Amino acid sequence: MKIQFKREDILNAVNTVQRAVPSKTTMSILECILISCEHDKVRFTANDLELAIETEIGADKCKIMETGAVAVEARVFGDIIRKIASENNSDILMESDGSIVQISCDYSLFKIQERDPDQFPALPELRKNIYMQMSQYILREVIKDTIFSVAVNDTNKMMTGELFELKGDHLRVVSLDGHRIAIRNVQLKEDFGTAKAIIPGKSLNELSKILTGEADKNVDIFLEDNYAMFRFEDTVMTVRLIDGEYFRIDQMLSNDYELKAEVNRKEFIENIECAVILIRESDKKPLILNITDNKMDMKLNSVVGSLDSSLLINKSGKDLMIAFNPKYLLDALRVIEDENVSLYMTNAKAPCFIRDEEGKYIYLILPVNFSAGSY
Amino acid sequence: MKIQFKREDILNAVNTVQRAVPSKTTMSILECILISCEHDKVRFTANDLELAIETEIGADKCKIMETGAVAVEARVFGDIIRKIASENNSDILMESDGSIVQISCDYSLFKIQERDPDQFPALPELRKNIYMQMSQYILREVIKDTIFSVAVNDTNKMMTGELFELKGDHLRVVSLDGHRIAIRNVQLKEDFGTAKAIIPGKSLNELSKILTGEADKNVDIFLEDNYAMFRFEDTVMTVRLIDGEYFRIDQMLSNDYELKAEVNRKEFIENIECAVILIRESDKKPLILNITDNKMDMKLNSVVGSLDSSLLINKSGKDLMIAFNPKYLLDALRVIEDENVSLYMTNAKAPCFIRDEEGKYIYLILPVNFSAGSY
Repeated sequence: MKIQFKREDILNAVNTVQRAVPSKTTMSILECILISCEHDKVRFTANDLELAIETEIGADKCKIMETGAVAVEARVFGDIIRKIASENNSDILMESDGSIVQISCDYSLFKIQERDPDQFPALPELRKNIYMQMSQYILREVIKDTIFSVAVNDTNKMMTGELFELKGDHLRVVSLDGHRIAIRNVQLKEDFGTAKAIIPGKSLNELSKILTGEADKNVDIFLEDNYAMFRFEDTVMTVRLIDGEYFRIDQMLSNDYELKAEVNRKEFIENIECAVILIRESDKKPLILNITDNKMDMKLNSVVGSLDSSLLINKSGKDLMIAFNPKYLLDALRVIEDENVSLYMTNAKAPCFIRDEEGKYIYLILPVNFSAGSY
Repeated sequence: MKIQFKREDILNAVNTVQRAVPSKTTMSILECILISCEHDKVRFTANDLELAIETEIGADKCKIMETGAVAVEARVFGDIIRKIASENNSDILMESDGSIVQISCDYSLFKIQERDPDQFPALPELRKNIYMQMSQYILREVIKDTIFSVAVNDTNKMMTGELFELKGDHLRVVSLDGHRIAIRNVQLKEDFGTAKAIIPGKSLNELSKILTGEADKNVDIFLEDNYAMFRFEDTVMTVRLIDGEYFRIDQMLSNDYELKAEVNRKEFIENIECAVILIRESDKKPLILNITDNKMDMKLNSVVGSLDSSLLINKSGKDLMIAFNPKYLLDALRVIEDENVSLYMTNAKAPCFIRDEEGKYIYLILPVNFSAGSY
């Protein structure tokens, strides 16, 4: 194999696929990037068995002098490419003799060991029956707006994934961790059929980092029984799905409420951030909201001190004193982009809903117990 | 105590003194900031017994309504001040009743526990006999240019400090760790007498972070038997010195050489940084330099691969093959600001000197063993 690359192309390819290289693994071949070169293109692949990323550089963008395949350790190869691509304007020449890969640029020549490319695990074949399309921008936003409420701890595997639920021209994305639910609804441009998939949060996180997020560039999404595939520009990401039936969330949602409070989002965030200063890791203290006409008082008591603050609000319905884990409020409020948010509540034991009129987003947060004496 | 501060003044005071608050201590009063308020000023103090920082806000800059003293936990107090100073334009009111400190701003009111200010350790009294003065800019540069070669591991306590050696209008600053020596010579504006002090590297590091680094603002430095004091603007830093006689470095320095190589500093750094990519933490591989007429070839072999590169140089004297720990070369080359640097060498076992013609800096680096066969 012998190929001459433009530095930005090989840099981009390595940075893209490296997200699928596991940081720890017992199968050392998975620590490698597979580079396979045919007459018309060079393909870069990484695969941690949960998540595979492939990206291509076409023969029109590089100079293919000899075809072939090599596997190289991703970490050292990535470090070399990033370093020489940052310093040189020259092209990068890569050459393999079957045991050593040479990477050269200007006056520097790196030699690294090759690994057997045949050991690299094959990617699953997809039938590509069910398909939908949306802009990179929207997909990235949808992930950002829901990813924070997947469970990090996988005692319940299902909670570490997000439900992608396609119904005609409508996609609903749901995540939940037992204390809260995040829902984003997306209107698609056409009817793409019906499908459901539970996609691991970790893979969605990596996906959101390699999407360029441009509004006029699309992603094709294929959903099958065991895999989902995301295809955009020269890159394909294949993700193993979480098996099983997702939680029935519709029965947890309700449009009834006894109190509606409209709050300036930025002021609310600032007040909660003040309260969070007083919380030490080990010590979970609730933020108590006392909602009366046109005013929301907030109080947090902890071992290090207390905070009292208040906000002017627009409120309709009854008065209420209710307490939350302030982190859950912050997570939802930070991803919303509206200037004002509406909170819908019923009583101190029932969930609070933060949702917009158009139904683009719904955040459900369960309240926590508090002793009224501590207010 | 009751004082109203402008937010930038109290923020600056807290950020300055917090550098002397220990992250771990068995004396919990040292985790506090002492705030003592007289009629003409408010003084903020932190003290970890090795290093004390005091800074003042004059009565002209704040509104003193009641004098007094309190000690407050530095971490939570700092977090509160940074948070409310970043969000509000209003002044910050601080009020103590002898057991609780109230900090308020706009619609937020924090209450935190006070600690007994009388438990706070007193600062040493200095006689202030021997004194020198230089600009903040120069002192900060001198620390940056030498601090990397103090020993991090304190099996030899002396090596964790820097020698400040004052002789008339000349200051020499020296650090060494057994593998290398860094020396900076500073021409002072007048004759300040003679003195020596070994100042802990950790304290110098903190000092360099609070110096604003302006060329037209001065630092007064007082050197005594057990303490050094740095006084600038509204701040005083008192540092406990390392006791003992510093290494005799003059006998390690030599102006003789058999080879002088003039190298472009930036190209040299880039080539060494390439080599460093191939080094894994556990595995100390030397960078071998092969210096011949007008060319320096570099080679590094490691478990993950090898690098060959070469640089055009100006060389006089004999040819030489010599090896170094590449990190030590990088540390020195990165703080030098000259476009080209001169390397002076004798043989593969003798130290290499990197120094300028004016004698502003001298970096001595010991070579390491290598097997000629590995080249």
